[in-house]
Amino acid sequence: MTEPLFLRACRREPTPRPPVWLMRQAGRYMPQYRAIRERADFLTVVTDPALATEVTLQPVEHIGVDAAILFCDILVVPWAMGMALRFDEGVGPLFEQPLRAEADIAALRDPDLAGDLAYVFDAIRLTRRALDPAVPLIGFAGAPWTLASYMVEGRGSKDWRKAKRLLVERPDLAHGLLDRLADLVGAFLVAQVEAGAQAVQLFDSWATALGPEDYRTFGLPYLARAARIARTAGAPVIVFAPGAEHALEDLARDTAADVIGIHWRLDPPEARRRLVDASVALQGNLEPAWLYAAPAEIARRTRSMVDAFGRQAYIANLGHGVLRDTPVHHVRAFVEAVKSLG
Amino acid sequence: MTEPLFLRACRREPTPRPPVWLMRQAGRYMPQYRAIRERADFLTVVTDPALATEVTLQPVEHIGVDAAILFCDILVVPWAMGMALRFDEGVGPLFEQPLRAEADIAALRDPDLAGDLAYVFDAIRLTRRALDPAVPLIGFAGAPWTLASYMVEGRGSKDWRKAKRLLVERPDLAHGLLDRLADLVGAFLVAQVEAGAQAVQLFDSWATALGPEDYRTFGLPYLARAARIARTAGAPVIVFAPGAEHALEDLARDTAADVIGIHWRLDPPEARRRLVDASVALQGNLEPAWLYAAPAEIARRTRSMVDAFGRQAYIANLGHGVLRDTPVHHVRAFVEAVKSLG
Repeated sequence: MTEPLFLRACRREPTPRPPVWLMRQAGRYMPQYRAIRERADFLTVVTDPALATEVTLQPVEHIGVDAAILFCDILVVPWAMGMALRFDEGVGPLFEQPLRAEADIAALRDPDLAGDLAYVFDAIRLTRRALDPAVPLIGFAGAPWTLASYMVEGRGSKDWRKAKRLLVERPDLAHGLLDRLADLVGAFLVAQVEAGAQAVQLFDSWATALGPEDYRTFGLPYLARAARIARTAGAPVIVFAPGAEHALEDLARDTAADVIGIHWRLDPPEARRRLVDASVALQGNLEPAWLYAAPAEIARRTRSMVDAFGRQAYIANLGHGVLRDTPVHHVRAFVEAVKSLG
Repeated sequence: MTEPLFLRACRREPTPRPPVWLMRQAGRYMPQYRAIRERADFLTVVTDPALATEVTLQPVEHIGVDAAILFCDILVVPWAMGMALRFDEGVGPLFEQPLRAEADIAALRDPDLAGDLAYVFDAIRLTRRALDPAVPLIGFAGAPWTLASYMVEGRGSKDWRKAKRLLVERPDLAHGLLDRLADLVGAFLVAQVEAGAQAVQLFDSWATALGPEDYRTFGLPYLARAARIARTAGAPVIVFAPGAEHALEDLARDTAADVIGIHWRLDPPEARRRLVDASVALQGNLEPAWLYAAPAEIARRTRSMVDAFGRQAYIANLGHGVLRDTPVHHVRAFVEAVKSLG
């Protein structure tokens, strides 16, 4: 059997057309997902391998994407370190007792991955068995800075001032926490590959909170270490650090990633130009809000995006997660526009 | 009398040291401000010229900044267009009935600036009389896209999906609204200068919501029109569009601004390099969270920032507003570090 398009693109091997998937492709915009969420809350779906598998498969069946991504949440890692996690409708995930003092950080446990996160690996194994062999399964994790800042803030933030205050006032504590997270996240991704994930993506979603100097100090080194550990498992590693466009070249070099995800704020030609010397494939970056357009217009913009990135060493995706009120047939129009190029 | 440092720097005339002020310098971090807010809510302070004047003067007296900025809010413009505005503690300003349909936009009134916003001009006149003649007073307004998106969202947003949905689904309505706002904001700034403001700043705070293509379509042209109208009043115009770093060169050219504000996400040398051919002064851009550092460290980082920008055609500032829990003496350490260069 030929290797799936997605994996070939990750490895920068020639593909007749780019593969396509969407960040947050299993989620609220799908009626099938909402039906499950009516009988199970978010964390139940995450921790129940059968439900997580069902949700992971939905966009493969109903949207026709070229890759599945495990339904999970980046905060399962701090949760496994002992931080009580809650998920409030309309607010999103939140930690009941955010890290506030040195003692809180010291009290974090070193999780036993195989035990504490068994539900993740079970879901990967179950999904891999249920999924069409031609469709690769992507695992993922949050990058150390993103997890650390979430652990300090406790929930979404506009200015990240609690987390940034820690960096400024107690850089020693911050580095200690980031250090633990880098190894843990790296090992978590290796274990996901061992369970059957055929690629992994590192999300540094809150890279956007840090300026260039702070990102070079507190963000990139730990993301890079996690990515390099993950890479030892042999599966392609995708790195997505929205807001760290200032560090794009360093991101590619320091992480040794196979694929760099591009945020919608960066023009495709500029991304290609800046990464022309890096041996990386690119992934992205349609503005998620453009999926509000009529299907014909979505197709036009999608083709224009693919032309701008070029068809090789490229994975079509959005430049961020699908918005929850996106019409399903618009998501399908996006996927079909890419597939029609083949 | 020599012209104040701030105005000379705006005009790129030589200065013995850079002038310094801070975005959101009158605000919650100051005990004097909190004392006033204990007896008057936010909108009362904004609409009472005596209170607005008192708050505007506080950082001049207690922090020693080189310029005052009128205490006001960008949302006074849509408020004057008939949108009911409320200010909830912990949430910030919000519109009770956001723009949801074509009829909502059609129902917006054309405000009579002199009448509906008389409290702004009264506060400018009062402040100008009370303020040391050596300290210039800055007026300001929100840029059209920032106002329009706020009017559609109704409040702060993480993904701006309602506003962006309007751009995609009804670009005609969006352009119509932006068009009205550009003229109105331009005229509002002219009237502020006529009332006594010696410079004006346009805040396109939600530029960050738009990718390069959308910003070129819905953001920059209207910001540019407002800025060019404002410029006819003869006072320097400062433009700050955080998140539109992708459009930095176009921003300088299209707005014909005297000063471009630089966000903390952009390294000073890169800002200078990209704007070397533009006849603009730069303003910014210390990471606000760095004011959590000890005063000696603040002084070190501030000097390093000034060195990176260069001392001429430069106004020292933060790269965003002061964070509310910043210690007052840290803000003073920032200001004194700049002043000690003179």
